[in-house]
Amino acid sequence: MTQEETMIRTALAAWTLTISRLEQKVASFSDDYLQREVAPGRNRIFYLVGHLTVVHDRLFPMLGLGEQLHPELEEAFFANPDRTLADPITPPELRHAWSEVNSRLTAAFEELQPHQWLQRHNAVSAEDFAKDPLRNRLAVLISRTNHASFHLGQIMLVK
Amino acid sequence: MTQEETMIRTALAAWTLTISRLEQKVASFSDDYLQREVAPGRNRIFYLVGHLTVVHDRLFPMLGLGEQLHPELEEAFFANPDRTLADPITPPELRHAWSEVNSRLTAAFEELQPHQWLQRHNAVSAEDFAKDPLRNRLAVLISRTNHASFHLGQIMLVK
Repeated sequence: MTQEETMIRTALAAWTLTISRLEQKVASFSDDYLQREVAPGRNRIFYLVGHLTVVHDRLFPMLGLGEQLHPELEEAFFANPDRTLADPITPPELRHAWSEVNSRLTAAFEELQPHQWLQRHNAVSAEDFAKDPLRNRLAVLISRTNHASFHLGQIMLVK
Repeated sequence: MTQEETMIRTALAAWTLTISRLEQKVASFSDDYLQREVAPGRNRIFYLVGHLTVVHDRLFPMLGLGEQLHPELEEAFFANPDRTLADPITPPELRHAWSEVNSRLTAAFEELQPHQWLQRHNAVSAEDFAKDPLRNRLAVLISRTNHASFHLGQIMLVK
């Protein structure tokens, strides 16, 4: 492996580990358990799993990896806070969408070459990227891994 | 910047952002607020800040960057769960230790060259590292950034 390959593998391993910890939790939750709040008056697990599904699904267009799989989930899980709208899907459908998005996304990540990880993502203009080359795909991967860890920490509080 | 330098800068930017979000929260908390639990019966913010201080302090020896600054905090904030032992320091002392550890650690990170980030850390043997070159300093940086995000997510729940 080249140094660049090792660096990308290292960042991808952190993504995979975080997703697999979340996957294990989500798979173990009953439908009722998914309705619990992570703290009194805070988001339900159901909403957070939906939210993470949408945030990860949006990475396909943002990183130039394809189309979103479930744009119909954006309104309830991304554009609005928890319990603003009725849940747009059932718990089995949510578990399925969550797994599907993560597995396809991780497969697409595995195909990218090291130099492609340093190219700009689609939420930054060519001009802005020229000023700040850290606004690359790798930054998005690391940021979304941290975002997933942020909500994993909350989900782990539920008794 | 070389590709390797850009990759390391990208990972360091995520570390710095996460720490600065935590620093801002910790600096804004009153002594009383630090005593709040992140959820009923769960860790106090005070404990989590102590815990993160110790986990980050342990990176000095683990990454070959020097000695721990506050080994006296390990017993209360790392070896034992919250409220097992009396708090070993006052809130102002905790805020100081937390800032001191992070600022010195970040300064040490900035000095490391890209190839040094791919060297093994001191918690893995040379034999094991030969089998798995992903057990490098960069993996520890990304892992601790995720760990900090995990607890930041919990701290953000406190009203």
